Amino acid sequence: MNKPSHHLCWILLLCSIVCLPRHVIAQEKPNIIIIFMDNFGWGEPGFNGGGIIRGAPTPRMDTLAEEGLRLTNFNVEVQCTPSRSAIMTGRYAIRSGNGTVPLGEGVYGLVQWEVTMAEMLSEAGYATGMFGKWHLGRTPGRYPIDQGFDEWYGVPNSTDESVYASLEGFTESGVSETYVMAGKKGEVPKKVRPYRLDYRPLIDRDLTDRAIGFMKKNAAAKKPFFIYLPYTATHFPTMPHPDFKGKSGKGLWGDMLMQIDSYLGDLIDTIDELGIKDNTIVVFTADNGPESLSSGETSLTVETAVHGSAGPWRSSLFTGYEGALRVPFAIRWPGRIEAGRVSDEIVHEMDLFPTFARIAGGKVPTDRKIDGIDVSGFLLGKTDKSGREGFIVYMGNDIFGVKWRHWKLHFKEQTGWNGVLREYTMPRVYNLLNDPYERDNVLFPNTWVLKAGLPQLEEHVLSLKKYPPIPTGAPDPYMPPE
Amino acid sequence: MNKPSHHLCWILLLCSIVCLPRHVIAQEKPNIIIIFMDNFGWGEPGFNGGGIIRGAPTPRMDTLAEEGLRLTNFNVEVQCTPSRSAIMTGRYAIRSGNGTVPLGEGVYGLVQWEVTMAEMLSEAGYATGMFGKWHLGRTPGRYPIDQGFDEWYGVPNSTDESVYASLEGFTESGVSETYVMAGKKGEVPKKVRPYRLDYRPLIDRDLTDRAIGFMKKNAAAKKPFFIYLPYTATHFPTMPHPDFKGKSGKGLWGDMLMQIDSYLGDLIDTIDELGIKDNTIVVFTADNGPESLSSGETSLTVETAVHGSAGPWRSSLFTGYEGALRVPFAIRWPGRIEAGRVSDEIVHEMDLFPTFARIAGGKVPTDRKIDGIDVSGFLLGKTDKSGREGFIVYMGNDIFGVKWRHWKLHFKEQTGWNGVLREYTMPRVYNLLNDPYERDNVLFPNTWVLKAGLPQLEEHVLSLKKYPPIPTGAPDPYMPPE
Repeated sequence: MNKPSHHLCWILLLCSIVCLPRHVIAQEKPNIIIIFMDNFGWGEPGFNGGGIIRGAPTPRMDTLAEEGLRLTNFNVEVQCTPSRSAIMTGRYAIRSGNGTVPLGEGVYGLVQWEVTMAEMLSEAGYATGMFGKWHLGRTPGRYPIDQGFDEWYGVPNSTDESVYASLEGFTESGVSETYVMAGKKGEVPKKVRPYRLDYRPLIDRDLTDRAIGFMKKNAAAKKPFFIYLPYTATHFPTMPHPDFKGKSGKGLWGDMLMQIDSYLGDLIDTIDELGIKDNTIVVFTADNGPESLSSGETSLTVETAVHGSAGPWRSSLFTGYEGALRVPFAIRWPGRIEAGRVSDEIVHEMDLFPTFARIAGGKVPTDRKIDGIDVSGFLLGKTDKSGREGFIVYMGNDIFGVKWRHWKLHFKEQTGWNGVLREYTMPRVYNLLNDPYERDNVLFPNTWVLKAGLPQLEEHVLSLKKYPPIPTGAPDPYMPPE
Repeated sequence: MNKPSHHLCWILLLCSIVCLPRHVIAQEKPNIIIIFMDNFGWGEPGFNGGGIIRGAPTPRMDTLAEEGLRLTNFNVEVQCTPSRSAIMTGRYAIRSGNGTVPLGEGVYGLVQWEVTMAEMLSEAGYATGMFGKWHLGRTPGRYPIDQGFDEWYGVPNSTDESVYASLEGFTESGVSETYVMAGKKGEVPKKVRPYRLDYRPLIDRDLTDRAIGFMKKNAAAKKPFFIYLPYTATHFPTMPHPDFKGKSGKGLWGDMLMQIDSYLGDLIDTIDELGIKDNTIVVFTADNGPESLSSGETSLTVETAVHGSAGPWRSSLFTGYEGALRVPFAIRWPGRIEAGRVSDEIVHEMDLFPTFARIAGGKVPTDRKIDGIDVSGFLLGKTDKSGREGFIVYMGNDIFGVKWRHWKLHFKEQTGWNGVLREYTMPRVYNLLNDPYERDNVLFPNTWVLKAGLPQLEEHVLSLKKYPPIPTGAPDPYMPPE
C-alpha cells in the first residue's frame, strides 16, 4: 500500500537533488558589493530604530535588512583610516601603521606588501571596482588601483577637505588640495577636478552611477565582480544633492538620509534588473560611529552642524565607546543567507576578509597575522555563533579596552572625540546588555570578567611582538623584519 | 463601447457600499485594551531597535507594531503617579494634584470629582477591568473601583514596596505595607496578600490570566470591554517568573523581556481566538522612561541592578529629557488602523481620553480643562498630522520646558533622576532631530523657536489660573472653586 508513495518520495528526493533551483546551488564566485557609509551611526537606519526619528524613513535599507541578515553587534575601528585599513586587510590597523587618520602632509596609508581584499578577490578571478573615498594613501603607489582595484573613481583623502578651498587663508597656505581622481590598474590616476563645495553635493550620485555601470559591464561579461563603495554623503559637511535638498522637510540630515536610501535603492534595483540578485552579496555598513559635538561646542550653520546618532550606544567616532564601534550592518544573499534573521553575535569588519576569501575561493595570506576570522558558516546559518568572543578596542594607537561577549573592559576614560584620554588605575567593567551607555562600572562583584576578557589582550600583545607593526608612513618597498 | 464597463463600475461601486467587509464598518463600541508597562524605556522593544541588544528578541511586540501603527514620538509624564493620573483623566497631572509620586504616608491620588477614562467608558456602556498597579490612591474612596472600574486586582501603590518586608528595620517601623488587593465596584476592596518578594515574580502572570478571564467573560456576553493593564514586571526589583528565570541566557532583564513578550502574546492569542480581533483596539505603551543609575552609583546585586534603555534619547524617568518622555507605543485595530504605518507625530498620553471617547461614543467633560486632544482622525489615517504641536514638560510640579515640533526648550538643567534641578538664566533650545541626546544648545541662531514654542506655555499658565489645580491630597468631597 505504501509502495506508490515510496516511489514518489524517491522521485521527489532525486528531483530535489537534480533540479535544485539555481539560487540554492553554491555558486563558486558570487558578486560582492560592500556599501561603506562614512561616519554613519548605529542609530540612523530605520532597521535599528532610526529612520523617521532622524528625519526620514529608510525603506530601502530596511527592506535590505529584512531580505537578509541584520547584525546588531558588528564592530569596526573607530576612525576613518584605521577602519578602512582593517576592512581591506583583515588586520588590526595598528599592524599596518594606520592606527590614526593622517593629520599632516606626510606619506601614509597601505604599503604595497599588504594584501587587500581587492587583491585577494582579483587573484580569485574577480573584476574589482572602487568608487568613493579611499583614505589609505594619497601618494603614487598608494592609490586603490595600486592595491588590487581594476578601476577607481573618488577621492584619496576625506570630505572635510572639500571645504578647504572656500576658507580664508587656505589658498596661500601651500597646503595641498584634495582632487577627485580616476584611474585603472597599472596607470597613474588622473586628477579629474578639485574636490570643492561645488562638487561635494554631487559626488555620491556619480559614485552610484559608476558602480552601476561597473555592475552592468561585468554582469554582461559574466565576470564575477567586487565593488567597494565608500560613500561620502554622511560625512561633514552635510550637503545633499540638489535633487534631495529640502525633500524631507526635516532639515539637511533628513534630506541626506533620503538621498542615500534612494541611491541604495538604485543599486538594489540594478542588481535585481540584471537578474543577478541570487548571486550577489550586498553588504550595507559603515566605517565608524557618527560625528558628534562634545558638550559645550556649538555649531552655528546648518552645513557645519553635526547630526549623528549612535542610537542607544555611548559617544561618537574617535572614541573607544560602543557608539564608535558598533555600526549598522545588513547583508543580503537571497537563498543563501536566511531572510529576516537578526543576530547580536559579535562580528568585526576584519572578519570580512577571510569570510569573503572562503566564499569566493580566495587565498588568505599565511605569512602574516590575519586577525579576522571566517564567519561564513555563521552568515550562512550553519551555526548560531559567529565564533568571535571579542576583540581589542583601539582608539588611535592606544589600547582603550577589550570587548568580550556582552562585557566591556575599559582601561582608559575618554572625554569625547576631541577630548582627553586618561588611564584608569584599575580596569573598569561594563555590562553592555544592562548598560548600553557604558555608564556604570560593575567591576565588583564581576572581577571574573577580567579573568575572562584579558587573555585575548595578552595573546594580542604577544602577536604584536611576534609580528612587529609596520611603522606609520613606512616607505615602499617594505618587507617585514625576519 | 464603454457602457458595459460603466455598468460594471456601478455594480462594483454599489457592492462596495452594500457588501463592505465587516471589519470596515464602523463598529460603535470596539473593545479597548491598554497594556501599560512600568518604567519601560523607548529602547526596549525590538520595534524601536531594542529586543536582541537588550537581552531577548520581542517578536510579539514587533508583530503587534507591524500589524498596526507605531508612534515614535508618543509622550507621557515622567513619573509613575503623574503619568497614571494623566492617562486616566486626559489632563496634566498638576491639575489633579498628582504632580509627583507620593513619598510620605498621607492621602494622595484622584479625588472623586475627577472623571477617569474608566468612568467615561463605563458610562458609554463598557465593562471596565483594571489589573495591575494603580498608584493613584491607597485609601478608601481612591481605589480603581471607586474611579469607574467594575473590577480590580492588583496593588494600590508601587513595586519597590514589595522589598520592604525583607528589609531590616521595616517591620518595627510602623510604616504600612502594600497589599495585593481585589474588589468590585461598590465594594470595599479586600486585601488578598501582602505584596512581598515571594509574590513579586508571580503577580504579572496573575494579572494576565485575570485580564484574559475578563475578556472571555465579556466577549461571551457580547459586552464591549475596557481593560487597563498596568503591568509591574519591568519595575525594580527585576524578578522574572520562575518559568522565565534563566531562559534568555542573557541575564534577568533578558528573561523579563521574554516574559512580558510572552504575556503580550497570551493576550493577543486570546483576542484572536475569541474572534474579536477586528473589533478590539490594543495599545502597548508605558508610563514613563526607564530606570537608570546616575553616574557614580553602583548596584551590587543582580536584582537591584537597573537595566533600562531609552534608546537614543537622553536620561531616565524622573527627568525632563526625552528618555523620560518618549515611550514605546504601538496600537492595533485591524481594518481600521493601517498596518505597518509608522509616524513621528507628537501624541501625548492625555490624548487617549478624548480619542477613545470619540471612538467609543463617550462624553468628554466640559466643566474642566481637558488637555488631551482627539487624535482619532490621525490614528485612523484620515490625516497625517496628529494635530498636536507640542506640550508642557513637567518634572514633578516644576515646569522643566516645552516641546514644540522637533524642538525642545529647556528652562532647567537636571543632573539625573535623583540629582539637582537648577534654573537656567536663559532658555536653551535643542533640535531633537539633529541632536536626540539634547546635548547642544542651539538658541543662536534659533531664537525664533522661543517665539514659536512659548505661546503654548503662556496659554497653559493662563488656564492654570482659570482652573486652579486641585491641591495634592485634597480631601473628598472635592469641588472646584467657582
